Amino acid sequence: MQKIKLTIKQAATINSDIYISSGFLNEINTLFPIKDYSQLFIISDENVANYYLDTVINSYLSTSPQLKINSHIFKPGEKSKDITTFTEILRSMAKAGLDRKGIVLNLGGGVTTDMGGFAASTYQRGTKFFNISTTLEGMVDASIGGKTGINLDGYKNYIGLFNHPEAVFMDMKTLDTLPARELIAGFAEVIKHGIIQDSKYFDLATSKHPSAFTHRELEEIVKGSSEIKAKVVKSDEREVGQRRLLNFGHTIGHAVETASFATDHRYLHGEAVAIGMVAATRISELVGLLNSEETQRIEQAISSAGLPTRVNPSIDKQQILSLLKFDKKVEGNKINWTLINKIGAGVINQFVSSDIIEEAIATIKSNE
Amino acid sequence: MQKIKLTIKQAATINSDIYISSGFLNEINTLFPIKDYSQLFIISDENVANYYLDTVINSYLSTSPQLKINSHIFKPGEKSKDITTFTEILRSMAKAGLDRKGIVLNLGGGVTTDMGGFAASTYQRGTKFFNISTTLEGMVDASIGGKTGINLDGYKNYIGLFNHPEAVFMDMKTLDTLPARELIAGFAEVIKHGIIQDSKYFDLATSKHPSAFTHRELEEIVKGSSEIKAKVVKSDEREVGQRRLLNFGHTIGHAVETASFATDHRYLHGEAVAIGMVAATRISELVGLLNSEETQRIEQAISSAGLPTRVNPSIDKQQILSLLKFDKKVEGNKINWTLINKIGAGVINQFVSSDIIEEAIATIKSNE
Repeated sequence: MQKIKLTIKQAATINSDIYISSGFLNEINTLFPIKDYSQLFIISDENVANYYLDTVINSYLSTSPQLKINSHIFKPGEKSKDITTFTEILRSMAKAGLDRKGIVLNLGGGVTTDMGGFAASTYQRGTKFFNISTTLEGMVDASIGGKTGINLDGYKNYIGLFNHPEAVFMDMKTLDTLPARELIAGFAEVIKHGIIQDSKYFDLATSKHPSAFTHRELEEIVKGSSEIKAKVVKSDEREVGQRRLLNFGHTIGHAVETASFATDHRYLHGEAVAIGMVAATRISELVGLLNSEETQRIEQAISSAGLPTRVNPSIDKQQILSLLKFDKKVEGNKINWTLINKIGAGVINQFVSSDIIEEAIATIKSNE
Repeated sequence: MQKIKLTIKQAATINSDIYISSGFLNEINTLFPIKDYSQLFIISDENVANYYLDTVINSYLSTSPQLKINSHIFKPGEKSKDITTFTEILRSMAKAGLDRKGIVLNLGGGVTTDMGGFAASTYQRGTKFFNISTTLEGMVDASIGGKTGINLDGYKNYIGLFNHPEAVFMDMKTLDTLPARELIAGFAEVIKHGIIQDSKYFDLATSKHPSAFTHRELEEIVKGSSEIKAKVVKSDEREVGQRRLLNFGHTIGHAVETASFATDHRYLHGEAVAIGMVAATRISELVGLLNSEETQRIEQAISSAGLPTRVNPSIDKQQILSLLKFDKKVEGNKINWTLINKIGAGVINQFVSSDIIEEAIATIKSNE
């Protein structure tokens, strides 16, 4: 047997800085100049494009009238985050003659930044991209941290990879055009960041109803969440340790979200995560990590934010249980859970008996 | 404007060693033990599976009778290397309950290792894989170096990413079941390695007709090519410099290959590369890098190996020219060519006038 050693040493410093302000989209040309790229390719959905596509294009054309700009606009919603839309985006890129020196802009919420990031990262084996995040959920979660991907049939984010945007922009003014339900859904991830890392931030984020915060206050909230997420991602990019903290509420949350796709009551990601957090909080109490007072405070805060704490009756317990085994956090046959010791202190790598899981699911099933 | 710095430092040492011998497939269980993985998922095509799937499965079951093994077998040929087959593979993985602790084995030629590597690399944002390369082209080219991907409609390798297998195995005995045409096609990449890096290796590889080499001699040839490729990849994994040497013959080669897909005479990758090398050699001569004697030696060697040096009449010059602009090596509007100074000495980053490109294409069009 002949052996040829092939050892590749990779060393890279990736900058993926986050910019937060209000009302700057018409100046994106100076904030993220693209003179070093051969062209710009924008990915967005119909809703977001309707509001902001012209602003962004005009901003760039005002300083670079010759700039080649193409775009792919898809139907809004989680349902579009699939292989079909992904393929259509890649076809548009090829048709536009996008080359490796071009840059992709993902303009939208989590569906757009997840799918657009995956499309850019795989187009010609890797094209650079940056994100303008226009939803709260996108700002505090999806657009930061390099997780890109699409759903495979019902399986959430089953196809994807890790790759970071060149920069992420968050403009609070874009939240004005966000439906109230989506703003509230975004608060699920905000509250999660408080629960797993920072009790003061939890107090701030749950001090008012989501719709009562001003742009200025939202900037602080988005900044707080982004800092928590950036810190966790920096310490463990590939989710082999601390990044698992961010999975709090996402195990049962994903199952509830997937199960809801087959019903008339489709949950937004944040809504499903809210229910998942109630379940994970209950598990934390049942295994003896958390006292019942904190359990109640968390459930109360989630409820006061206008988020659901119980699952819709059209989804049954068995469905949730059977979907759990497709979770990406399964190792061998066991689920690796993220739980909490108290508000502000998440704990990773917890394994839990099936009795307790069933009891937690019973909690979110009981109709109040 | 608030700014949060997110800097991620990546440092990794990747081992992707290459093993070359004859007649060891039944011992793959000891050469690549998989006791540290939760399960094995094998990707192969019908032809290769027919010959070798049972051997590999039985080898693993002989020491680990409990090992969970699943497979996805697709129709052979470049036509399968598309989004549809890729999606079917991912569905099979999900259905098999493959998790992140499992490992994927790509068992086959370049289509299998390219597509299977891409599927594994994106399944649940990254699952490990190793390759058993069963064609000469796969051994000396596709299976080494971390380029994975699929075609997008007619565009070659337009979707993919860089990711390395855990190991690559090459068994000369598998070449016995390879059709003669495919063995000859594999010699195009072998000859290319000689042309760009090593004139002695060029002499060795062109010393006999491909079918006249023994297993022992093929081991040496495969070893020589693997060493050249490994050295180039090690120095420039992401193809920003020296790795472009490997593109010699691949610019016009890819255009010829793509154009042939619409005709009755589909070229194998190596056959199209052979024609592309004749064109790139001619360009090297026309720009004054190469003398006409060496041009003739190269063309003679390609022809003696049984490879084509002229393009089929059903493909016209205009088609080749218009396909060139979709090449991944285009920057701005210009093609970045890899040419040669002499046999054994490739040169990268060459830009060439369109007159010369047209003249080179005329060369491969002239019917002898």
